[in-house]
Amino acid sequence: MSANTRFAARIGKVGKSFIREILKVTESPDVISFAGGLPNPEFFPVQAIADAAEKTLADHGAEVLQYRTTEGYPPLREYIAGRYARKGLRVSPDEILITTGSQQGLDLLGKVLIDPGDRVILERPSYLGAIQALGIYEPEFLTVPLLDDGIDTDELEAALTRDRVRLMYAVPDFQNPSGISYSGETRRKVAELLGATRTFVIEDDPYGELRFRGEALPSLHHYAKDHAVLLGSFSKIVAPGMRLGWICADPEILDKLVMVKQASDLHSDSLAQSILCRYLMDNDIDQHIATIRQAYGRQRDLMIAMIAEHFPAEIRCTEPEGGMFLWVTLPDGISSLELLDRAIAARVAFVPGCPFFVDGGGENTLRLNFSNCDEERIVEGIARLGRVMKEAVAAAAPLPPTSR
Amino acid sequence: MSANTRFAARIGKVGKSFIREILKVTESPDVISFAGGLPNPEFFPVQAIADAAEKTLADHGAEVLQYRTTEGYPPLREYIAGRYARKGLRVSPDEILITTGSQQGLDLLGKVLIDPGDRVILERPSYLGAIQALGIYEPEFLTVPLLDDGIDTDELEAALTRDRVRLMYAVPDFQNPSGISYSGETRRKVAELLGATRTFVIEDDPYGELRFRGEALPSLHHYAKDHAVLLGSFSKIVAPGMRLGWICADPEILDKLVMVKQASDLHSDSLAQSILCRYLMDNDIDQHIATIRQAYGRQRDLMIAMIAEHFPAEIRCTEPEGGMFLWVTLPDGISSLELLDRAIAARVAFVPGCPFFVDGGGENTLRLNFSNCDEERIVEGIARLGRVMKEAVAAAAPLPPTSR
Repeated sequence: MSANTRFAARIGKVGKSFIREILKVTESPDVISFAGGLPNPEFFPVQAIADAAEKTLADHGAEVLQYRTTEGYPPLREYIAGRYARKGLRVSPDEILITTGSQQGLDLLGKVLIDPGDRVILERPSYLGAIQALGIYEPEFLTVPLLDDGIDTDELEAALTRDRVRLMYAVPDFQNPSGISYSGETRRKVAELLGATRTFVIEDDPYGELRFRGEALPSLHHYAKDHAVLLGSFSKIVAPGMRLGWICADPEILDKLVMVKQASDLHSDSLAQSILCRYLMDNDIDQHIATIRQAYGRQRDLMIAMIAEHFPAEIRCTEPEGGMFLWVTLPDGISSLELLDRAIAARVAFVPGCPFFVDGGGENTLRLNFSNCDEERIVEGIARLGRVMKEAVAAAAPLPPTSR
Repeated sequence: MSANTRFAARIGKVGKSFIREILKVTESPDVISFAGGLPNPEFFPVQAIADAAEKTLADHGAEVLQYRTTEGYPPLREYIAGRYARKGLRVSPDEILITTGSQQGLDLLGKVLIDPGDRVILERPSYLGAIQALGIYEPEFLTVPLLDDGIDTDELEAALTRDRVRLMYAVPDFQNPSGISYSGETRRKVAELLGATRTFVIEDDPYGELRFRGEALPSLHHYAKDHAVLLGSFSKIVAPGMRLGWICADPEILDKLVMVKQASDLHSDSLAQSILCRYLMDNDIDQHIATIRQAYGRQRDLMIAMIAEHFPAEIRCTEPEGGMFLWVTLPDGISSLELLDRAIAARVAFVPGCPFFVDGGGENTLRLNFSNCDEERIVEGIARLGRVMKEAVAAAAPLPPTSR
């Protein structure tokens, strides 16, 4: 670029997704990759989507190919509100904005809510897509650790009372990357803290429908409607390629989000919105989700069983009740980034944990995806990874007393 | 919103699209509206899109419903580069980024290039979608008037040499709202000025293929490749609902755009990209564009003829060689905003010119759309508007001498 052009300051803080870069390395078909975050395409309802596309174009062709309102296709907004109602969450279709995936929801919320320097609380570790999307708007990120039952509410309380916090970003169900969920008690406590400090939360829920065990718990939005914006997505329950998600927010915020969405892309793909809506009307989505849940649950169980068999005893792993990811903690002093080189040499891949920590740390952590792998590859891949880990643990161990 | 949340400063400068607000007023079926900016849905290739959707989902269903690379579907990027090549513009497919409509192209470019306070030159009047998209990033807008043969190059030179200008935004073909095109001489001069001052231009070309008369002229990108990013769109030549456009930029800029697009929506609808590409492969798009051109050309001719017949002689109107809009200038002192109230009472609508002027002025201007109206409605609508204008001109005229 030879013109009188530098890049905007906000770009200095955004890197290309480390995960996407790793994915390029692991594209070789003989590498068993647990690195990606993809749903299993075996469960995409291809024929039903094709039927819905045919009907949509036959019945409303000119209409679905024309410009559409920014807010989104009204029957799709009604469907989403109706589905929330069945779970006990009362929202109006007017509180739903259709977005180009929930990734766009994050971008729009950053645009509307974050001034440079505003303090934003993230879970530690946190979802990389949110770090990137919100990071563009130059907040100061604070992090609060995740415990086994969700965010550390003592540390959250300390952060909320100590600092002027603009908002918090949370993934209470089957978080990416950790697989951790907030307990009912944690949810209530978080909602209480948000209310007491009048702090806003972006609650991201891409995986909530993918629960294999345990009982569904109310969203933060349920406890703290005035303080919460809820993001949802069709990517994990139907298919991600059509890029359709939504924001559920109160009318005052939604009005601003509509303004900035207008400026960002006018509206999300109208044809895709109509095809998806037709698919949802004509098919039993709950049955479809049950099929995905069962399959992912089996894959998760198998991966955990193989880990118990093959990983060294020193290595810990989350046991998520849903979602797509396991989170592995190596003994202190073992770097998952160094381990990745050995793993790729052994033709198996994962994502090292560091990119999920905006303020450093996590060198001994890594993420494993179990949704996009068949059982044969899980068995073989975890065995390969186990061998690499045993070598690494042995090499890092203190020498036995006899050789001192 | 009761939480501890104000909106970001950047939002204060963005209003809802005035045009969209007007469109709501003019939705009544008995209003003949020249206000919108929609293509004519009569020419959407509905059956061919349906065929392409069927084939795409049958042949590559799971693949097109999965996540895809941020850059876009490679065959679609190759198609775009190939089409440019046929017009003499040599670009690599690697220089093409598929966007969610060219509106997203504007948003991504604003994100990557504009720091608050940066000076950005707009044409006067300028495209409202660009004012909104770039305005989010809080530039200082400077404006340079449009003359009959494009931007005023004397004033442009003065602005470029006087001020530290970050970039210029230009629509050289059949501009929205004015319908004005840059002459070959203007293009060469603008490119020369950009080169001499090392200034960057965003060249927006949504309408270039819709030429009814005259000869196609080279893009600014042709003359000033190092200084130009070129935006294109399928909205006007195929259909807008799928929201597919592109940015053509050199690799250094494209790399940054890919980073911010990843953070903005991961990628544009994969299913739509594949359907569109299949449609383009299987059909004669040039024949299709010729059909649209002929129809819009007839509608433009008819509207200009009706204006000559019905509007008062004091009123001037552009005679564009392509695109979708005419630009009308009323005698000084007549407000198009006041005229709109009378027009709506007479069941005809247009867009007043003011919103296209970021720094005031244009009170006596208005935009008429001719693409989305059949001939009967053009005849009747311009007759209605002519009556309203005659009344307004008569009311504004000095009283005749006899009654003084």
